[in-house]
Amino acid sequence: MMTTASKPIEAVGQWWRTIAAAANQHASLEAARDFGEGWASLTPEPGGVDYIEVDAGGVPALWVVPKQCATERVLLGFHGGGFFTGSMYTHRKLFAHFAKAIGCRALILQYRYAPENPYPAQLNDALNAYTWLLDQGIMAPHIAFIGDSAGGNLCITTMLLARDRGLPLPAAAMPISPWYDMEGVMDSLVYNQGKDLLFTKEWVQAIAGMYLGAQGNPRDPYANPLYADLKGLPPIYLQVGGDELLLNDSTAMAELAKKAGVDVRIDIFPGMQHTFQMAVGRAPEATDAVERYVAWVKPKLGLV
Amino acid sequence: MMTTASKPIEAVGQWWRTIAAAANQHASLEAARDFGEGWASLTPEPGGVDYIEVDAGGVPALWVVPKQCATERVLLGFHGGGFFTGSMYTHRKLFAHFAKAIGCRALILQYRYAPENPYPAQLNDALNAYTWLLDQGIMAPHIAFIGDSAGGNLCITTMLLARDRGLPLPAAAMPISPWYDMEGVMDSLVYNQGKDLLFTKEWVQAIAGMYLGAQGNPRDPYANPLYADLKGLPPIYLQVGGDELLLNDSTAMAELAKKAGVDVRIDIFPGMQHTFQMAVGRAPEATDAVERYVAWVKPKLGLV
Repeated sequence: MMTTASKPIEAVGQWWRTIAAAANQHASLEAARDFGEGWASLTPEPGGVDYIEVDAGGVPALWVVPKQCATERVLLGFHGGGFFTGSMYTHRKLFAHFAKAIGCRALILQYRYAPENPYPAQLNDALNAYTWLLDQGIMAPHIAFIGDSAGGNLCITTMLLARDRGLPLPAAAMPISPWYDMEGVMDSLVYNQGKDLLFTKEWVQAIAGMYLGAQGNPRDPYANPLYADLKGLPPIYLQVGGDELLLNDSTAMAELAKKAGVDVRIDIFPGMQHTFQMAVGRAPEATDAVERYVAWVKPKLGLV
Repeated sequence: MMTTASKPIEAVGQWWRTIAAAANQHASLEAARDFGEGWASLTPEPGGVDYIEVDAGGVPALWVVPKQCATERVLLGFHGGGFFTGSMYTHRKLFAHFAKAIGCRALILQYRYAPENPYPAQLNDALNAYTWLLDQGIMAPHIAFIGDSAGGNLCITTMLLARDRGLPLPAAAMPISPWYDMEGVMDSLVYNQGKDLLFTKEWVQAIAGMYLGAQGNPRDPYANPLYADLKGLPPIYLQVGGDELLLNDSTAMAELAKKAGVDVRIDIFPGMQHTFQMAVGRAPEATDAVERYVAWVKPKLGLV
């Protein structure tokens, strides 16, 4: 059976085409980042949500506060953008849709950028913000991690670091089109070439080098959790588009988690692009995907 | 002397080209409004600003709260969009740039749309919100009105209605590329045709008809303040682009205000498009224009 993509979901692919075409045209990293802020326009305003900037343990962050939400339940949100672009603003509306549908707050981090601050700056920022949340009296079982692309990496690696430091773990993690493979060896980097409207294998490898820095090890399990022991991690729900170069990052993570005894779910969306969920509220495919996450995570946060 | 437009300011013209090209392609008014939300992408995030939704006397509105601002000083913001599009979200960042630079709060109204709710629904919403602000204990001399295009109309007409109802008047008004001429008779509708990348004379007239409704009078001074007696109004500062079809709306208002003894200033920006100030923080032309407003209004609000 053929499925037909909705017109609004095509805006996601069009955005990636625009980003890919402009990638080498920017005068500076700052210009590239400013251009990348247009990512936000894929997502309509959810409405009925307040936004408060805060210093979260030394990390700039944005509180996303839906009206009448359960304020003691929190999504800790890690935005995507290859660790060098994207922001708490590009993903403000995306995570607000999640928070509003779940009925909780979200805290979106503005972790430091590579290459100015390579790995592990982002991971340390994420752990500091998580620790700060716990210090605010938010209980770990009332927190879920969410993040897309590079932020989907932090979803897992921050849990690993928290576990290894003896911190309590969050209730669940929701990596969206996550990026784990810092070696650039996944098969989907080849077989989905041309279907993925954003990435090329060479670009993914270049961004990995920028993240890891000159001294970086692409098999460091805190940077590439496909080399990690995932034992003891909370439930994980991965979503990924079938046309993504990063498809096998998700399938490999799902296999690894299953072998480690972790409660893991993966949904592959045929024909979908990287982080297509950005079109939630506008494209039915994206809204359906977000609703699946919401239904999955609410009971894990003790919400009915 | 030729002046050269900056590359970022060209994004404004490109946006208007996109809007004009799409104008007759939308499946519904809702689709047109959703498309129009992209207007927001012209403006970069100011940062350090919180956003709180509120019911302002029955009118949905957005509080814009820069960190460490003088909370008892308020810009009352009326967004543009021909009274049928635009929103408190499209203009969130624009008015936040103003509020942050001035060091005050802004309240952006989501007044009702025409044609579902024609004139005077928008004017009544604006006056209700102004009255609500006064009821909150904000003093009239600590309030300034600001608005672009259709919102620049409400800047003046709301003051007229407040005056005629015996309410205290705000400290100042800042209409940006305002729209007053509901008859469609201004010379600039003809001589700037083709230079203005958004409007045609026919479209302006059609939008006026939508605003006024079937029974509307295009010379009603509360809809078309070029027919109003402006006596007793507070200081007004108009900015308008030299290439606008609405250029003479501003020049005619400036003349009328001057004759009525109102303290009025007008700045015409050669070569600029409708509401080019949306590019503040990205395009130097827009940033300069906003800085002029800020320097003008701060002492009027008792801020130094």
